[in-house]
Amino acid sequence: MSDVFENVMDLAKRRGFIWPTSECYGAVAGFIDYGPLGAMMKRRIENIWRHFYVVQEGYYEIECPTIAQEAVFIASGHVKGFSDKMCQCPHCKEYLRADHVADGGGVSGAATMDNATLAAAIAGCKCPACDEVLGCVDVYNFNLMFSTTIGPGSQRVGYLRPETAQGMFVDFSRLLRFYRDKLPFGAVQIGKSYRNEISPRQGMIRLREFTQAEAEIFVHPLEKNHHPAFARYANYRMPLLTYTHQHKCEPAVEMTMREAVDANVIANEYVAYYVALTHELLVTVGIRPDRLRFRQHLPDERAHYATDCWDAEVYSERFGWVETVGIADRTDYDLNAHAAQSKTSMSVFIQYDTPKKVQRRRIIPNMGVLGKQYRQKAKAIFTALETATPTAEGADVTVDGETIHIPADLFEVRDEVVDVRGEEIVPHVIEPSYGIDRMCYAVLEQAYAEDTADGEKRVVLRLTPKVAPVQVAVFPLMARDGLDTLSGEITSNLQKQGILAEYDDSGAIGRRYRRQDEIGTPFAVTVDYETKETGTVTLRDRDSMKQVRLNTGDLQQIIPALIEGSMHFAAL
Amino acid sequence: MSDVFENVMDLAKRRGFIWPTSECYGAVAGFIDYGPLGAMMKRRIENIWRHFYVVQEGYYEIECPTIAQEAVFIASGHVKGFSDKMCQCPHCKEYLRADHVADGGGVSGAATMDNATLAAAIAGCKCPACDEVLGCVDVYNFNLMFSTTIGPGSQRVGYLRPETAQGMFVDFSRLLRFYRDKLPFGAVQIGKSYRNEISPRQGMIRLREFTQAEAEIFVHPLEKNHHPAFARYANYRMPLLTYTHQHKCEPAVEMTMREAVDANVIANEYVAYYVALTHELLVTVGIRPDRLRFRQHLPDERAHYATDCWDAEVYSERFGWVETVGIADRTDYDLNAHAAQSKTSMSVFIQYDTPKKVQRRRIIPNMGVLGKQYRQKAKAIFTALETATPTAEGADVTVDGETIHIPADLFEVRDEVVDVRGEEIVPHVIEPSYGIDRMCYAVLEQAYAEDTADGEKRVVLRLTPKVAPVQVAVFPLMARDGLDTLSGEITSNLQKQGILAEYDDSGAIGRRYRRQDEIGTPFAVTVDYETKETGTVTLRDRDSMKQVRLNTGDLQQIIPALIEGSMHFAAL
Repeated sequence: MSDVFENVMDLAKRRGFIWPTSECYGAVAGFIDYGPLGAMMKRRIENIWRHFYVVQEGYYEIECPTIAQEAVFIASGHVKGFSDKMCQCPHCKEYLRADHVADGGGVSGAATMDNATLAAAIAGCKCPACDEVLGCVDVYNFNLMFSTTIGPGSQRVGYLRPETAQGMFVDFSRLLRFYRDKLPFGAVQIGKSYRNEISPRQGMIRLREFTQAEAEIFVHPLEKNHHPAFARYANYRMPLLTYTHQHKCEPAVEMTMREAVDANVIANEYVAYYVALTHELLVTVGIRPDRLRFRQHLPDERAHYATDCWDAEVYSERFGWVETVGIADRTDYDLNAHAAQSKTSMSVFIQYDTPKKVQRRRIIPNMGVLGKQYRQKAKAIFTALETATPTAEGADVTVDGETIHIPADLFEVRDEVVDVRGEEIVPHVIEPSYGIDRMCYAVLEQAYAEDTADGEKRVVLRLTPKVAPVQVAVFPLMARDGLDTLSGEITSNLQKQGILAEYDDSGAIGRRYRRQDEIGTPFAVTVDYETKETGTVTLRDRDSMKQVRLNTGDLQQIIPALIEGSMHFAAL
Repeated sequence: MSDVFENVMDLAKRRGFIWPTSECYGAVAGFIDYGPLGAMMKRRIENIWRHFYVVQEGYYEIECPTIAQEAVFIASGHVKGFSDKMCQCPHCKEYLRADHVADGGGVSGAATMDNATLAAAIAGCKCPACDEVLGCVDVYNFNLMFSTTIGPGSQRVGYLRPETAQGMFVDFSRLLRFYRDKLPFGAVQIGKSYRNEISPRQGMIRLREFTQAEAEIFVHPLEKNHHPAFARYANYRMPLLTYTHQHKCEPAVEMTMREAVDANVIANEYVAYYVALTHELLVTVGIRPDRLRFRQHLPDERAHYATDCWDAEVYSERFGWVETVGIADRTDYDLNAHAAQSKTSMSVFIQYDTPKKVQRRRIIPNMGVLGKQYRQKAKAIFTALETATPTAEGADVTVDGETIHIPADLFEVRDEVVDVRGEEIVPHVIEPSYGIDRMCYAVLEQAYAEDTADGEKRVVLRLTPKVAPVQVAVFPLMARDGLDTLSGEITSNLQKQGILAEYDDSGAIGRRYRRQDEIGTPFAVTVDYETKETGTVTLRDRDSMKQVRLNTGDLQQIIPALIEGSMHFAAL
């Protein structure tokens, strides 16, 4: 009984998309290799992501190390809180996620239980590894960060980053200067992140080393409802599964982003903008809209830092709805946390359009008398007086824990009106965060199809031409009579245009089509004897298996247009 | 007293090329962030690398995890041998590289001393950190791999890879199948590698986390002198500093690759091909030929696995000659090591053009009699007989440690002539290995220049247009009267072509030029009042500071041509 997961992973392994890592030593769960075709497809998906976020949005990409020092993750909360609840089976010694044991054993509400309650609740559950009833176990928190030490002598603890985001928060001041001290601005990263999962068992869905593409967009907290380019997606219509829908078990509702923001379904324009952009991006890489939904986090499901969060979930025949992208309003949580931990400022000075007149009370000490009377303490008293609340008799100030009464004749109280040019604010962060490996898996699973060609079963990957690793195949009908030379020239001309064209002259032509169908090559050019007479070739479409005859000279314009989607095969 | 290193790193920090990592917590030595412009430049350099290795050479890129299990690095030798000699200063407790202490203290030959000899030799040297005489210290080996544990319960040791190469060796069987069991083939990776340096103190030159671009080319051991595309570089002429030149303290000699191979200066065509390709690649990204040399490793400097190795060294005003690329013939060392450790085959079956007739002696046991006589041992005896050396009396075979004499009448010796179709061979590996961060630093250092513009000092990065992060700047002379709108349109039209164009309307035009000069933007378009009348703009060249007037409509063809180098500004 094989399902699409097994079929697609078998194909992925066989044809060089995805390989178990260091297989000859026994693969390690939670790690994969991208083979030649998989790495190419992944890079195409990453470049589409860059097209949206770097070219369209104008957010520069940065590259921070994957190892960072402990202080970063103390501030972010990962050292303390980034853990799963774990127990060990007393019979087979397997390490287990206690909440998964609970779910599997029909115990509900595991997510909100403390460790002791959870341990008691799962005592009657069976170990999923050895099938024995667990009995009495300890449940404890297992931190999911990979740790290491930097430098010799175990001098310094380091962690492999669990998300790329923290690098951009920590670089906030540098980024702010780069963007000339103006909000909003954004920075993005595409890179490896790491989570030391307890027992990963879901192929490419739950990896210990994975690729994230994250954007951190820094916004004035009062301007979250004014995305400068909101018009682009205001009328973008898509189904939204809000938390109220989920509570009432109602289906998702279709609406435009304008409607969603106006009805307070999505918290603000920024979140709505990236919800819509994410929908467009996922459809662009080949996710079918009917297998894609946007689900709002339930209030008790949201991370402590987020005020609103939407997951793009992609339906998998094997895994159900899989969270693939998260779009969160992280507020000022992270910048405040790093400011506090690092004791540096993480704010922006926002200049008012016109300075504001502000009434202010100033206390001006009589320095001469104070100095004489209080000597070494005088300076501290000066400072303390600035924020004191004076009465008619004088003011009480506290210096080094001692309260000192300063009589009213030792200072003057002056009420002034001053011009305030602006204020320091801590930006809020809107974060779209993409799991690239999950996107790759979803694209493969949804592209996998079996149909019939020439009366035989055909396996075909219906990848959109934008992400197909090999973009066009070139076949000489026979590997002789000059057909091979002609095919070679066509191949290398296409390659010079930056197109991945693959020459293949081995085996029957039908077998060559099948090989390319299976890896998702969308187009195939065949050079036959007519080519020598008329200068024309056939161009075959993977999905319809139709062929048209074209002038060889037109390929250089037609092939790129077909790949980028500005032309369709049916129109030829 | 500032040198170019300080100037260029100051500029790199200020303008967003390179930042200290997690600076607000105190940067960690050996780690850097690539800021917005640095990351863009790095990506352009990586893409030029891909152009050479993936497009031109046709070697597919793969992507292996950065964490790998211990067995991989036991086989590769890194667990045992990848270490530096370390000691600790008894006074200030600083960890030191013992060989560096020796070099600094005038002790020669440290590289070949054992630990005890080295300890004795440096007892009289001063600690470079606190300047006290070291005295009696222990010298021990410090392994440079970052280690971690995979999964809970410290179940499994993992290491961050010290090179990307091992991933490709371990995937050999999969790669071989992908390339349809034919040699030669290659695989490449661009990715992070890690070395836990004891005390890195050289900015981007010695990093603990760095980016490598490596190609592993698998070749028939007898065909290393027949690179199929050798003609491409046969007449490529460049200076070579062979080890005999180094022994005699003679300067490098210019020769072609054909001459170098014929004179046995370079071991074989494959190594020579990648030496020349590397020269071309480095010049393409902007390294000046007069600051580039190719130095052959001295026999005692070569890694244990290499038969020939050439370093591309780039001259730095701060660091002298810096190894930036290594091109090694790694022989069959790695594949044999992994085959032995993993007990799997890492060979290729090479079919002969025509089967060879081979005379072979076969021993055919008389199964019936043997079976009856030796019962359970019969099967093992059959097998042992196949390789036995029989005499007229019979044959001695060893089964389970016991020697058994089998009389001659229990088997028949038959001399046959058989067709042998081919043989199993273990390929040799040619490896060009590039340090991307060192290339980035060299490109920045060599591009840094100061000259005079409008009577004032100008700082300019003379980056080749191919690697400049911002490719063209667009300025309205004034940010009004429609000049801003026109400039905006030009900017977005260029962006649609995939060109990084930056619009800037703030400050005097001279100041805007200076800002772009400093980040290496090669071209600037200025929209002025004439633009509205004649539809022309000025195009300014960063290096000559000359300007020409062009039709706005021509920019879309001229700018890409100038960037890719098919057109030169002087020709306009």
